[in-house]
Amino acid sequence: MDAEIIAVGSELLTPYRLDTNSLFLTAELNRSGFRVRRKHVVGDHDEDLRQVFRGALERVELVISSGGLGPTQDDLTRETVSDLLGRKLKLNETILRGIQERFRSFGRTMPDVNGRQAMVPEGAEPLENTRGTAPGLWIEQNGKVVVLLPGPTSELQAMFVREVKPRLARRGGNLRLYTRDLRITGLPESEVDQRVSPIYKQYPGAETTILSAPGEIQLHPRVWSDDKAAATKLLDELVERFRMALGENLFSTSGEALETVVAGELQEHRATIAVAESCTGGMLAARLTNVPGSSSYFRGGVVSYSNDLKSAWVDVPKELIEAKGAVSAEVALAMAHGIRQQTNATLGVGVTGIAGPGGGTPEKPVGLVHIAVVNEKSAKERTFRFPGDRDRIRHQATQAALDMVRRYFPYAAKAKG
Amino acid sequence: MDAEIIAVGSELLTPYRLDTNSLFLTAELNRSGFRVRRKHVVGDHDEDLRQVFRGALERVELVISSGGLGPTQDDLTRETVSDLLGRKLKLNETILRGIQERFRSFGRTMPDVNGRQAMVPEGAEPLENTRGTAPGLWIEQNGKVVVLLPGPTSELQAMFVREVKPRLARRGGNLRLYTRDLRITGLPESEVDQRVSPIYKQYPGAETTILSAPGEIQLHPRVWSDDKAAATKLLDELVERFRMALGENLFSTSGEALETVVAGELQEHRATIAVAESCTGGMLAARLTNVPGSSSYFRGGVVSYSNDLKSAWVDVPKELIEAKGAVSAEVALAMAHGIRQQTNATLGVGVTGIAGPGGGTPEKPVGLVHIAVVNEKSAKERTFRFPGDRDRIRHQATQAALDMVRRYFPYAAKAKG
Repeated sequence: MDAEIIAVGSELLTPYRLDTNSLFLTAELNRSGFRVRRKHVVGDHDEDLRQVFRGALERVELVISSGGLGPTQDDLTRETVSDLLGRKLKLNETILRGIQERFRSFGRTMPDVNGRQAMVPEGAEPLENTRGTAPGLWIEQNGKVVVLLPGPTSELQAMFVREVKPRLARRGGNLRLYTRDLRITGLPESEVDQRVSPIYKQYPGAETTILSAPGEIQLHPRVWSDDKAAATKLLDELVERFRMALGENLFSTSGEALETVVAGELQEHRATIAVAESCTGGMLAARLTNVPGSSSYFRGGVVSYSNDLKSAWVDVPKELIEAKGAVSAEVALAMAHGIRQQTNATLGVGVTGIAGPGGGTPEKPVGLVHIAVVNEKSAKERTFRFPGDRDRIRHQATQAALDMVRRYFPYAAKAKG
Repeated sequence: MDAEIIAVGSELLTPYRLDTNSLFLTAELNRSGFRVRRKHVVGDHDEDLRQVFRGALERVELVISSGGLGPTQDDLTRETVSDLLGRKLKLNETILRGIQERFRSFGRTMPDVNGRQAMVPEGAEPLENTRGTAPGLWIEQNGKVVVLLPGPTSELQAMFVREVKPRLARRGGNLRLYTRDLRITGLPESEVDQRVSPIYKQYPGAETTILSAPGEIQLHPRVWSDDKAAATKLLDELVERFRMALGENLFSTSGEALETVVAGELQEHRATIAVAESCTGGMLAARLTNVPGSSSYFRGGVVSYSNDLKSAWVDVPKELIEAKGAVSAEVALAMAHGIRQQTNATLGVGVTGIAGPGGGTPEKPVGLVHIAVVNEKSAKERTFRFPGDRDRIRHQATQAALDMVRRYFPYAAKAKG
């Protein structure tokens, strides 16, 4: 069964606000057996509303909208949809009393304009709003369903769970969506595609999407099925083949962030970590401490922007900086060793580079980053040249550093899932 | 002139990803004299793509899409739109060489699949992609314009500014959107609304939207006008009245991030800063170093998660930690003094708190954060109790710390704009 989502509100057509309700609605619809075919954002404008609802009703079984149910003049969804479906609006006394009561409970009298919110199209079922004044509407027409929900997120979510979900359970198809969320780092999108597309093409029962995010590639295989065991088996098999093709580059099969996977490795191996950062300016420490419970493995970090502090805080010899430059493999290694010794951590990480936009030279261009990961006995250094602006360079540098830490641990023959 | 925006990508119809490019595109289109009439999200699906492009072309002068130009099998936008407009695709040798060169510059060979990205519909103008391999396309048809842009944000934005904007300047209507982007911190949304709504109601020529973001409130007055001087005068007057109502809580009238405003203050006063963080784990340093040129004012930072490191790195007396606890006003102050002395910075900042989800007690609950800002002669400490989850608490703590630094400098009687 297919659904379309319509977000109504002129403010959603400005540069300042996105429709975020559709993420929640999509997750819930998928669970109820509906596939989201399209999403629309439309202003509070009669003719546009008519067109978008009419088009959606021609295509899909379920049309669900958010917004435009408020008391003011500019909210038109209720009236426009009723008219489009050829239904008269009638005052519902129970709803009116409910709205009046809600205002009274806040010590106020209901303004006249709110009376509009008690108008219900003939044959429609009002959906109770436990968090606000605008009731929702459930309207069945020619075997299809139109659901109008209020725009404020807390009202929409509460109403969906309480009023819409049980009704959908009786209508959704037998099919449910089963999905996995694979995360890959260290390979570009095109390389991931070359490795995995010959595999997923052999599984027409699964739809696989490749998604590129800064510093990582995501792979989302999805199976619609009425047989949970069969869907799970198919996904397990597909994921196993992806794993073989991607090897150690695959770091999660359940959508975990890289820092969460690294945190798991550190905790599993009872290892601790400390970081000395230059160009990433604290972002690596921030990501490592973003994981709840990080105090069990994160010892500490320094942001040694200046050469003096590289020497003072992590014992990088002044002569080394003079000889090789602050942005060099040798200094990254010295920073990693220095911070490890300072903090008695299992692993020390050093990051130095040029995030730009200024500071680049022909020999040491913007995007050049040296990363070192060391333990008591061994040391590893890699040199990167990241593309993009300051923000992207810094993010990719933290991603690469986290990945080097992850790979420090023996590969468990499977990504954490 | 009206425009519609189409975001293409099946991943945008999953619960995992939102179309965020449309915010940037809307802002740019408004500046070029185009009003956004509708937005669409559609999957990589031939028939759906056809319908949505066809419908938009019937309604508006400009149709602009993002996504679906990648090298992989599932990307169909280029092919579908060419076919819909009745244009044949031809290989463009110059683009092909450009893509091959791009791969070479990163030391790689172009995979065969990328060859597709060099296909250009007859009569279309390719738009150069300086950040990636997929070129965009500008296609004129019956006096209307279709623009296809790549999905990755950095590629889309760079291409828009460089290739699309100059072409639009020759086509937009007479009305332009004039807007201001006010940023406020330290006041809740309801308080901001109470102060500013009596003002903007007196200016029906401007539309004003209030938007709540973590740690700040945004105020967006907008005026559509064909008279730049009149629109500017109206906005100046409105902003001046907002400024009077909001006082020092208003930190920008041009949408700058708080760290950018702080960077400006530090540079203007030739002051330097260093930070010692506990619960924010490097996020404060990361925000301060997010601003290009930050090495001119940022001395360095430490993330002293453990008590030992608080003593070793920023000279917090062990006895103080034992007496008051690591999360205390006294320790925040000692961290701020310690880091300032270590780095010889003008200002030292200390942050200690409980970000959760664990670690809270009845006396020191999750969300409790102490922040100190000190200079050579004076010290200021504030205690906060932030709501929300770990991520929100940490973000609000960095926002509050930056705001304390901003307020350290004499209020210039106007927000930076």
